[in-house]
Amino acid sequence: MAANVATVSTHLETARFNTVSFLSDYGHDDEFVGVVHSVIRSIAPHATVIDVTHGIAAHDIRAGGLALARAANYLCPGVVVAVVDPSVGTARRPVVIEVGDGAAYLLGPDNGLLAPAVGLVGGATRALELTSQEHRLPSLAGATFDGRDVFAPAAAHLCKGVPIEVLGQVIDPATLMPAVLPVSEMQGDELVAEILWVDRFGNCQLNVDPADIERFGEAVLVGLVQEQKTGIRVDAYDQIPIGRVGLIVDSSGLVSLAVARGSAAAELGLAEGDEVRLSAPDRNAAPFQPVTLTRKETDS
Amino acid sequence: MAANVATVSTHLETARFNTVSFLSDYGHDDEFVGVVHSVIRSIAPHATVIDVTHGIAAHDIRAGGLALARAANYLCPGVVVAVVDPSVGTARRPVVIEVGDGAAYLLGPDNGLLAPAVGLVGGATRALELTSQEHRLPSLAGATFDGRDVFAPAAAHLCKGVPIEVLGQVIDPATLMPAVLPVSEMQGDELVAEILWVDRFGNCQLNVDPADIERFGEAVLVGLVQEQKTGIRVDAYDQIPIGRVGLIVDSSGLVSLAVARGSAAAELGLAEGDEVRLSAPDRNAAPFQPVTLTRKETDS
Amino acid sequence: MAANVATVSTHLETARFNTVSFLSDYGHDDEFVGVVHSVIRSIAPHATVIDVTHGIAAHDIRAGGLALARAANYLCPGVVVAVVDPSVGTARRPVVIEVGDGAAYLLGPDNGLLAPAVGLVGGATRALELTSQEHRLPSLAGATFDGRDVFAPAAAHLCKGVPIEVLGQVIDPATLMPAVLPVSEMQGDELVAEILWVDRFGNCQLNVDPADIERFGEAVLVGLVQEQKTGIRVDAYDQIPIGRVGLIVDSSGLVSLAVARGSAAAELGLAEGDEVRLSAPDRNAAPFQPVTLTRKETDS
Repeated sequence: MAANVATVSTHLETARFNTVSFLSDYGHDDEFVGVVHSVIRSIAPHATVIDVTHGIAAHDIRAGGLALARAANYLCPGVVVAVVDPSVGTARRPVVIEVGDGAAYLLGPDNGLLAPAVGLVGGATRALELTSQEHRLPSLAGATFDGRDVFAPAAAHLCKGVPIEVLGQVIDPATLMPAVLPVSEMQGDELVAEILWVDRFGNCQLNVDPADIERFGEAVLVGLVQEQKTGIRVDAYDQIPIGRVGLIVDSSGLVSLAVARGSAAAELGLAEGDEVRLSAPDRNAAPFQPVTLTRKETDS
Repeated sequence: MAANVATVSTHLETARFNTVSFLSDYGHDDEFVGVVHSVIRSIAPHATVIDVTHGIAAHDIRAGGLALARAANYLCPGVVVAVVDPSVGTARRPVVIEVGDGAAYLLGPDNGLLAPAVGLVGGATRALELTSQEHRLPSLAGATFDGRDVFAPAAAHLCKGVPIEVLGQVIDPATLMPAVLPVSEMQGDELVAEILWVDRFGNCQLNVDPADIERFGEAVLVGLVQEQKTGIRVDAYDQIPIGRVGLIVDSSGLVSLAVARGSAAAELGLAEGDEVRLSAPDRNAAPFQPVTLTRKETDS
Repeated sequence: MAANVATVSTHLETARFNTVSFLSDYGHDDEFVGVVHSVIRSIAPHATVIDVTHGIAAHDIRAGGLALARAANYLCPGVVVAVVDPSVGTARRPVVIEVGDGAAYLLGPDNGLLAPAVGLVGGATRALELTSQEHRLPSLAGATFDGRDVFAPAAAHLCKGVPIEVLGQVIDPATLMPAVLPVSEMQGDELVAEILWVDRFGNCQLNVDPADIERFGEAVLVGLVQEQKTGIRVDAYDQIPIGRVGLIVDSSGLVSLAVARGSAAAELGLAEGDEVRLSAPDRNAAPFQPVTLTRKETDS
C-alpha cells in the first residue's frame, strides 16, 4: 500500500506543526476524506488531522467559507486545509496563505473559500501558489482531486517543517479572490438581513449582531419571505414558547431565528440566502394589526 | 488561530487520561464536532478523541442515552463527553459524574442522557455541577454551545490531570435526573415490548432478553401496530428466509426483529418507540388462522 | 468502562504497525464505528484508526470492494479492516490476507469484499481464517457484529506485533472468494460499459480506461438507458458547457460522466450498475440526426 506516497518521514525533530484542520464538501459517503487523511499521515505521521466538517453542500463555496470562519477561533495552531473546489483542474490557483506571520497556514483553492477565515484572523501576511511538483503526489490519474494530490501533501510537508517558500511561487495577497458576504443594513425603519446558515437543528443564523437589534426592544417584528411574525428575544432555546419564534444570540455571537424543540427552517420554510426584515413591532400597530404568528395560531 | 483557547499544556507528565469518547446529536453537516475536537486538543494535545456517534436524532435524549449505554462496555478508560441538550442555557445543570471511584468520568447535561450508561457500569460514585469559570472557555457569544464552552474544556482538563474537585460544586448523585426506559412485561400470554432502537440496517431492537422469549419456542407471534406475523428465531441474518421476520439476539444481547438483506423497519413500517407484542403462535391458532406474513405473502 | 476488552498493552516496543485503515457499511448514525475504534484503541493504544469511509450502502459488497480498491494505493502501511458483511454469523469465513509478503494485512469477511484491493496490490501472499478465540472479544451477545468482536481485536493484535500465524488457521488463498467486476467490451462499433460508482457529486465512473475511447475522438456518443447524448472530452469539470455531458479522466484514472456544477446521476437518471454504450458520433450521422442533449435542450 501507499506505493504512490512519499516515504514516511523519520525527521520528526524538525516537525513544525502537529495538527491539520480539514474542511471540505466531500461528504462521508465516499472515500475522499479517508484518502486525504491517509496521504497526510503517510507523509507526516506525527500530525493529527481534525475534521472540521465535510458536510458543506457540494460546491457551496460561501457556506464552506462561513463554516471555516465560525470555527477559526477554536482551531488548533497549525495548518488548515479547506476544499470546496468546483473549478478544480482549471486556472484557479491552489494556494497557501500565511496568517499571523506564520502562526498558521491555510491551504485551498483561490476561489474565496479561505477569505472569511483569513480576514477574521487579521489577513494574509504572505501567500504562494502551490506550484512545486516535488511537494505534490505524482500524477497518476485525472486532475480532479487536488485535496489528495496537491493540498494534503503540501499541508503534510508544512507540518514536517518544510518552509513555505519551497512550496511554490509567491503571489500578492491582494490578488487573492475575496469573499463576497452580505452585510445587513437599515432601510427606513427595517433592518434588512439575510440567513447566513441553517444548522442541523434548523436554527437560522442572520448576518446581524445583537447590538443591531437593541433598537427594536424585546419583541421584534420578523418579516420573512411569505409572512410576518413577532419574534421574542431569549437567552436559551427552551425559553421560546411553543408556536413562537425566538431571536437568540447563537454560538457565533450572531442573532439566530429559532423555535422550541423544532426546526425554525422547516417550520417557517426558510433557507440559506433568504432575506429577513427586522423591525419594531409597534411600527405596524394601528390601524392594522400586524399579521403575526400569535394571531395565526391563536395561541395568545 | 485558537485565540480563545487556553494555552497548550506542557505538563503531559501529569496526564491522567488520554482518551475522550464523544457522543452527540450534532451530526456531521456543521462544524460542531470539529470545534469540540479542536478545543479538547488545544487544551490536552496528548488526548485522542473517539467519536462514539454524532448521529443521534436532534434532541433525542433517550436515543442518545441508549447508544451510550450500548457502547459503554467497549469504551476506552477515561473521559466521556455526551451532549444531547435541548435545554442548553437554562437551569439544567452541566455535570460530571464519576463512576468506579475514578475509573471513568462522564460529562454532559443533567437531563437523563448519561443515566443509562452510568447505571450500567455500577452507578455514580461522585458527581459535580461544572461551575468553575476557569475551566470553561471565556464567554464570547451566546450560551447555546456548552459542548464547546463547558464540556470539552472540562474533559480536557480532566485528561490533563486536573482533579475533579476543582471543576465545580459537589452534588448529591441521588439528585441526578434518572433515565426513564421502558421495561417489557407479560400481560396475560403476551410479552408487551417496545422498539428501543432502529439501526442503520433497519433492525429493530426490543427491550427483550433472549430468556424472556424462551417460553414461546422457535416460532413467535409478533404483534405489530398494524399486523401480526410469525417470526422465527435465528442466529444470523442470512438464516431468515426471504419474506419472513427473524428474531435474532443482536450485538447488545437483546432480541431484535430483522429481515433478510433488507430493513425490517422499512418493510414492516416500524419506528423507535413502537409497541411489539410477542406470544406463542398456537395461542391464536383455531378457530381463526393468525394473519401472518406467510399468508399475506403466500410463501409457505 | 472497557470491562470486556483486553488489558491495555504496555509492550509498545514490539509494535509492528501503527495505522488501521477502516472501511465499512456501518454509517455514522449508530455507534458501530465508534465501538470499533474503541476496541482497537483499548488493545493497541499506539495505533491510529483512519476511517476510509463508512458510507458504503448497506450490504453492498461490490461498492465496498471498489471503494477500498480506489483508496488502496494511498493507504498508510499496515492493517486494513473492511466490513460489509450481510452474512455475518453464517459459515462465511472471517479472514486475514497478507499482501506484499507482510507489507500489509487486510481483514474482513471472505465474501469478495477484499478481493479488488488485494488484486490491485499484487495478490495474497498468505491467508488465514481468524479462528483464534484468544484474539477475539469474549462473546457476550449475539454473533452479529464481527467488526467489533473479531476484526477489530485481530487488527489491534497485529498492530501490537502479534504474528499472523497465531490468529487462526492457514487457508489456501486460491479458496478466497473472488470479486466479480464487470469488464467493458467492444460490441461492433460500441464500447459497452457499466457505471461502477456514482460519487457524492453525482459523477458516474465507468469501467473504461481513457485509452479505450481514444478511437472515438473528442466527441463521444453516450448511449444511456433511455436516451443518447453527445459527450465531450474535458480535463476539468468547469470545461463542460452548461447542458452538456462531459467525459473526464477522474481521480482513479477512469472515464467518468459529469455535468457542470451539478449531478450527472441526477440529471441523467443514472445509477451504479447501469449500462452505458460509447461510440463515435458520426456512426449515426445521416440520414437521421442523433437525438442528443443539445437538440433536446435547444441550446446549440
